[in-house]
Amino acid sequence: MNGQAQAAGALDVPERVLVDGREVGTIDAVDRGLHFGDGVFETLVCRQGAVRFLELHLERLRTGCRRLGLPAPDPATLRTELRALALPRQSCVLKLILTRGSALRRGYGATGAERPRRVLLRYGLVSGTDPGAARGVRVRIARLRLGENPALAGLKHLNRLENVLARNEWHDVRIAEALLFSHAGWLISGTMSNVFLVNEGRLMTPRVDRCGVAGVMRRVVLREALRCGLEASEAELDAATLARADEVFLTNVRIGIWPIRALGERRLVPGPVTRQLQALVGDLDA
Amino acid sequence: MNGQAQAAGALDVPERVLVDGREVGTIDAVDRGLHFGDGVFETLVCRQGAVRFLELHLERLRTGCRRLGLPAPDPATLRTELRALALPRQSCVLKLILTRGSALRRGYGATGAERPRRVLLRYGLVSGTDPGAARGVRVRIARLRLGENPALAGLKHLNRLENVLARNEWHDVRIAEALLFSHAGWLISGTMSNVFLVNEGRLMTPRVDRCGVAGVMRRVVLREALRCGLEASEAELDAATLARADEVFLTNVRIGIWPIRALGERRLVPGPVTRQLQALVGDLDA
Repeated sequence: MNGQAQAAGALDVPERVLVDGREVGTIDAVDRGLHFGDGVFETLVCRQGAVRFLELHLERLRTGCRRLGLPAPDPATLRTELRALALPRQSCVLKLILTRGSALRRGYGATGAERPRRVLLRYGLVSGTDPGAARGVRVRIARLRLGENPALAGLKHLNRLENVLARNEWHDVRIAEALLFSHAGWLISGTMSNVFLVNEGRLMTPRVDRCGVAGVMRRVVLREALRCGLEASEAELDAATLARADEVFLTNVRIGIWPIRALGERRLVPGPVTRQLQALVGDLDA
Repeated sequence: MNGQAQAAGALDVPERVLVDGREVGTIDAVDRGLHFGDGVFETLVCRQGAVRFLELHLERLRTGCRRLGLPAPDPATLRTELRALALPRQSCVLKLILTRGSALRRGYGATGAERPRRVLLRYGLVSGTDPGAARGVRVRIARLRLGENPALAGLKHLNRLENVLARNEWHDVRIAEALLFSHAGWLISGTMSNVFLVNEGRLMTPRVDRCGVAGVMRRVVLREALRCGLEASEAELDAATLARADEVFLTNVRIGIWPIRALGERRLVPGPVTRQLQALVGDLDA
């Protein structure tokens, strides 16, 4: 069994899979997503049948398509499929993978005539409160450092071996996440989350223009912080800044906001800014 | 049609596909190769039914598995499948993808109980001499710069978006390849090949310990060069060193050795060391 995933509330295997709208569980073995990681993905949370922050997800998807030179999928089709897969009165996680589709030639070059492929998976969510959000989580520092590439930075693309290697560094189920630094020494993110620091009331999150993913919940938190008058910025943050932070928390659309209560050997207390932001974003759907 | 692939001699779509030894053309939609690029691959060339440099390919595959924490596939099974797919008296290209297999949990972390999946594809080779090897090829410099990550450097892993983006930078079929520099400014490789420089008789190829792929033909060329008494080394090479080179050539197991006859605006002549090495490796199978 898998303590980490259980604590986080998401089931391990998908309940349903749609490939290009059809109820099949397989994809073409020449798909460029498999061969090269040539595509992008979104992890979406449905609450009572509706996808939270859907417009922000679709916007990031479009950005990813544009930067990778993928034709963007028809938004009406996407909305229909997401609606078809969401559970009417329950919560679930949907994962949408969009690849460049089946290879039309051997090798890296695309012809431009490929037909992108949509893979949509639904995972159940265990109901009940999330102890991570309430009590905070224990976090380690990853040994792996992220490579930097502005051409891919910010995108939720399918080249995620760094995340896999960093996540496989530990097996202690009491540790929920690891923080990652870039090769240049900047704090970037968690393996599956963005990270925020609070220092003397000021909110900061790492820039994601050299590596990292521009998370949807990261964007929501920045937006809500500014709306309620907090000083909030994207910045270059190093280990010393992290060590000085009064509060540190993690974000993604599935976990919402997880306060960090232990970072390696250091103990932290979920603080007032973290709690204020949890209250602000907890009920938002857009 | 696709001038690049035709000139290189490999067909665009596979003639046969084996997934875990079975004649099916699809893989599970929850395969971690698709979701994360969590796996490695090999591109192998068969001549008269036998895989060239098979032991070197299998050794690199084992290295990749070890570094990614993947169980290495049974070599006897691999050999049987490669033999089954090779054409008895013809040439072909085989591509072997090895992924960590179907995800047993949601998210980046592996359980360790995943069963790796083998995808083996056969592509036909157009017979006849390769004009690239004889006349040399035209090459450009890629705009994209490679990110650096020692944890992944040297491996032929499935995170190849950088290669895809660099290869999609040009569509002029007269240009065969692009050379890539790292973010730190070091020459690394082509998009699908390794690169060698010859300067005053000394052979040099970029180190692949921060990015790039440790190609099998690169290894064969280094080995053969040393065997025949050439001074040959792996080194940190910058743009100035490239500009001073007397000869520049590209390698991979499919193309063998391609002399570069035009690098951007600069004209080069396929030189004596390049020709000597072409003669040395052309008939080798191990």
